Amino acid sequence: MIKTLVSDKRITYDGTQMQSHWIHNQFGLVGDAVVAFIGQVKVDLDKMIDLIDVSRKESIYSPLMLNFLIEHFNPNLELAIYRQWLFMTLIKEELSQFEVNVYRLGDDLYFNKAKLSVSVATVSNVSSLIHIGLNIETEGTPIKTEGLSELGISDINSFADTIMLKYRRELEHIHEARCKVRGV
Amino acid sequence: MIKTLVSDKRITYDGTQMQSHWIHNQFGLVGDAVVAFIGQVKVDLDKMIDLIDVSRKESIYSPLMLNFLIEHFNPNLELAIYRQWLFMTLIKEELSQFEVNVYRLGDDLYFNKAKLSVSVATVSNVSSLIHIGLNIETEGTPIKTEGLSELGISDINSFADTIMLKYRRELEHIHEARCKVRGV
Amino acid sequence: MIKTLVSDKRITYDGTQMQSHWIHNQFGLVGDAVVAFIGQVKVDLDKMIDLIDVSRKESIYSPLMLNFLIEHFNPNLELAIYRQWLFMTLIKEELSQFEVNVYRLGDDLYFNKAKLSVSVATVSNVSSLIHIGLNIETEGTPIKTEGLSELGISDINSFADTIMLKYRRELEHIHEARCKVRGV
Amino acid sequence: MIKTLVSDKRITYDGTQMQSHWIHNQFGLVGDAVVAFIGQVKVDLDKMIDLIDVSRKESIYSPLMLNFLIEHFNPNLELAIYRQWLFMTLIKEELSQFEVNVYRLGDDLYFNKAKLSVSVATVSNVSSLIHIGLNIETEGTPIKTEGLSELGISDINSFADTIMLKYRRELEHIHEARCKVRGV
Amino acid sequence: MIKTLVSDKRITYDGTQMQSHWIHNQFGLVGDAVVAFIGQVKVDLDKMIDLIDVSRKESIYSPLMLNFLIEHFNPNLELAIYRQWLFMTLIKEELSQFEVNVYRLGDDLYFNKAKLSVSVATVSNVSSLIHIGLNIETEGTPIKTEGLSELGISDINSFADTIMLKYRRELEHIHEARCKVRGV
Amino acid sequence: MIKTLVSDKRITYDGTQMQSHWIHNQFGLVGDAVVAFIGQVKVDLDKMIDLIDVSRKESIYSPLMLNFLIEHFNPNLELAIYRQWLFMTLIKEELSQFEVNVYRLGDDLYFNKAKLSVSVATVSNVSSLIHIGLNIETEGTPIKTEGLSELGISDINSFADTIMLKYRRELEHIHEARCKVRGV
Repeated sequence: MIKTLVSDKRITYDGTQMQSHWIHNQFGLVGDAVVAFIGQVKVDLDKMIDLIDVSRKESIYSPLMLNFLIEHFNPNLELAIYRQWLFMTLIKEELSQFEVNVYRLGDDLYFNKAKLSVSVATVSNVSSLIHIGLNIETEGTPIKTEGLSELGISDINSFADTIMLKYRRELEHIHEARCKVRGV
Repeated sequence: MIKTLVSDKRITYDGTQMQSHWIHNQFGLVGDAVVAFIGQVKVDLDKMIDLIDVSRKESIYSPLMLNFLIEHFNPNLELAIYRQWLFMTLIKEELSQFEVNVYRLGDDLYFNKAKLSVSVATVSNVSSLIHIGLNIETEGTPIKTEGLSELGISDINSFADTIMLKYRRELEHIHEARCKVRGV
Repeated sequence: MIKTLVSDKRITYDGTQMQSHWIHNQFGLVGDAVVAFIGQVKVDLDKMIDLIDVSRKESIYSPLMLNFLIEHFNPNLELAIYRQWLFMTLIKEELSQFEVNVYRLGDDLYFNKAKLSVSVATVSNVSSLIHIGLNIETEGTPIKTEGLSELGISDINSFADTIMLKYRRELEHIHEARCKVRGV
Repeated sequence: MIKTLVSDKRITYDGTQMQSHWIHNQFGLVGDAVVAFIGQVKVDLDKMIDLIDVSRKESIYSPLMLNFLIEHFNPNLELAIYRQWLFMTLIKEELSQFEVNVYRLGDDLYFNKAKLSVSVATVSNVSSLIHIGLNIETEGTPIKTEGLSELGISDINSFADTIMLKYRRELEHIHEARCKVRGV
Repeated sequence: MIKTLVSDKRITYDGTQMQSHWIHNQFGLVGDAVVAFIGQVKVDLDKMIDLIDVSRKESIYSPLMLNFLIEHFNPNLELAIYRQWLFMTLIKEELSQFEVNVYRLGDDLYFNKAKLSVSVATVSNVSSLIHIGLNIETEGTPIKTEGLSELGISDINSFADTIMLKYRRELEHIHEARCKVRGV
Repeated sequence: MIKTLVSDKRITYDGTQMQSHWIHNQFGLVGDAVVAFIGQVKVDLDKMIDLIDVSRKESIYSPLMLNFLIEHFNPNLELAIYRQWLFMTLIKEELSQFEVNVYRLGDDLYFNKAKLSVSVATVSNVSSLIHIGLNIETEGTPIKTEGLSELGISDINSFADTIMLKYRRELEHIHEARCKVRGV
């Protein structure tokens, strides 16, 4: 069962967190896990994972984001991307509980054409890694963005916790679906 | 690239459609494909795929459904379930274009606690198969259900076509995501 | 986490138990599971899984065995065989707690050249399946055999329970080992 | 569908091209691709992929080669080698159109015992990579070699283009073969 | 290492040979194997593997073929097709030793537009299976065909043996190629 | 078939041996292999593979160990761990031939609560790697340990050879088990 944790301390996300066992080294968790933490996001081009963004020289900056870092110890990139897509859907669905209706385009979320999220998935030799950042504040971002604060999500930790709980349930639901069907 | 097709003729879905190459045999399509067809849905217990439903003796009936049958020639059940989940999300997102807000619980869609959908995914030796049915009409269904007609979706074929197109785009988007990230 | 269960009722093992979801259909368990049951074992040639045994016309009979039936919802035969080997090792190690030292040859256990066990692993479309039988009594077996009764194992259910518990712990240990090593 | 491109500019192949996304970084192509380029080939021992060659201290040199660089975003080495073998076969078959009959030994091509080609396949975390070089000129090569110029292949770009087109068709043919057979 | 065998007795190929362990049941070989046998080939539509042929109602007939039946205990269809392609290439290359130059189109061989071969690859739960038939005689075939007799291949068993030996060497070569390259 | 070799020369194990192709570079073996060598073992924290040990700052030291280094050219970590478990079982079984009964806890061996072994398994891009060290002498080890010398194993090379031979046979046995069962 995937472990979940909301970090108390602020952590700047600069891309170096997308390494296998970063969660273990930071928080001591062993195994599949998703952790949430708040902090500035500033990823220089040489730390970026998405090489199309790199070729466009579009580095990432946000003054304050709610970050999710997910690690599954299965280095299957295709599966990781489906899980990333699912996680974005869960965020969208949770936002709708706050009467905030966002538009999902693949792994991006928009509110009235302002970008709410950044996200990427990749693999190491031993695991797959997903980062998702949701703007809380947006001052100084290079493109038009929206933040959770402006959208009225005030209890960020609770919001993060709910989404991670839903992710865990969804994974359990998917696992059960694998175990209850006969082949044809 | 996945092929898509809306069938003109009515087809009763009785579970025997969940066989590899049924799409090829019916419509002549070769390769990954999703087809949509309208028809009665009546699956007896011995044809059902979900063995929990079987053990509860919950057979499936709907007088008229919009059916999607999806085949991917990769017999990976876990991946198939993530694709099924994604497809349900796309239906939900398209319904919201019609101001119809449904609740997704795994691979089920509900409107005000009435069930809109049935769905299952499984594998053969050579492929994975997904069936999704959306009630159009609901007379005689064994549980409380909702139908697309009541929800104001009148042009079923166009609705089906849009969702299949979105599914194809989403698969292309996911494929691109696999090809643009560096490993870590 | 794998589920474990010791069955109260006697069940004759005739080979038809090596089907996906037999455990679910019998005991209602969903997901990876190992169950133990006591009963006669009589497998006719057309129900046998090992085709070398079939070609030698060596059918299987024991008047009373402790049977383990294991299902993992991952149709990987190679992995299943390693798990089968591991399970045999756990039985051997548990027997040594009773001062009974058996000889393991692959997936077979012998006591003084008398055969204690039968075992086979295979796959369905959706899962892998392992059967292990340990003679309790041996009257009428076609070859020289030894039984748990003669070896002084009187509380069969407790013996079965211990082994299944050790199997669960071993799987957890292996899972942890996957999650704690860096790649090279 | 795999993308193909013949590069206009000369590029020296020194082994550093065998990196994931080199094709994307150089030519902007996203996804599975094969590119052809002409240039000197000089690979020092520390850049070589084949470790048997390294242990024999056999570095690679050719004054001018037609190079193919292939990337598939599936890090499966065994599959990559079968694709490499197939590509060599396509080169051999195309050369026979010019009445040039070469001998294939695994992934090497020979004309009258003179070596025409170098080739290697490997994997990164996210993709498989294949390099194939065909001598155009041979002055200064460390072993006996043959070049396309001497063999009468004057329009190198057209030759390269034809082979890449055949590779694409072959991949499509193989894909279709996967989708049209029933399991047994 | 793959086992090879040329059968002494004539065997009619009717499609039922494409089952896992047919080779074991017929010849007692255990493990990956390729066997060659001569016999009539007559496959009715309900026994055919290629469903495009079935939908075109193109059954298979030849009065006398050299048949190869290959089984690898790895149920990976994509890999099986690459191996099938490789086997066809080996036949083509061996024919060229007899000054017989055939044209390969995917998994088909032609001599002057007359079809020399039939072939198909598929999977069972536990293995992949390939059948290749080369006409020896052609009287009564439903399409224009060519036979090994007319092409001057008189010692069929020796021809079969050479090709199977080359296949074994090629598999060893490919295996070595997997083991000697560093990742990137 | 896996290759085996006992090295004549002493080699200090410092963790850098856990790299793909170290066996090839040292001993010239190509392909799956297990080698045994005697030497001091001293692994600093930055060379350690097990990150839980690293976080506990438990580096590894033994004045003299019998080391096994195993490489399989299949980068599947789960499978590698099952093979590591199997290897530990073989060591335990061989020690019992010397009337030395050790306790196995996962991949660790103990004699009267003194630790006999260290072991770890991991993957590179192209292979899986396993290291197993058995204390021969124990002076200066950071925890309570036992050594083969004290246990009466005097001919270390012969002991190593026997275990590697048993590993090879076990792998062949497992391979045969894959090839002789029908699917269900």
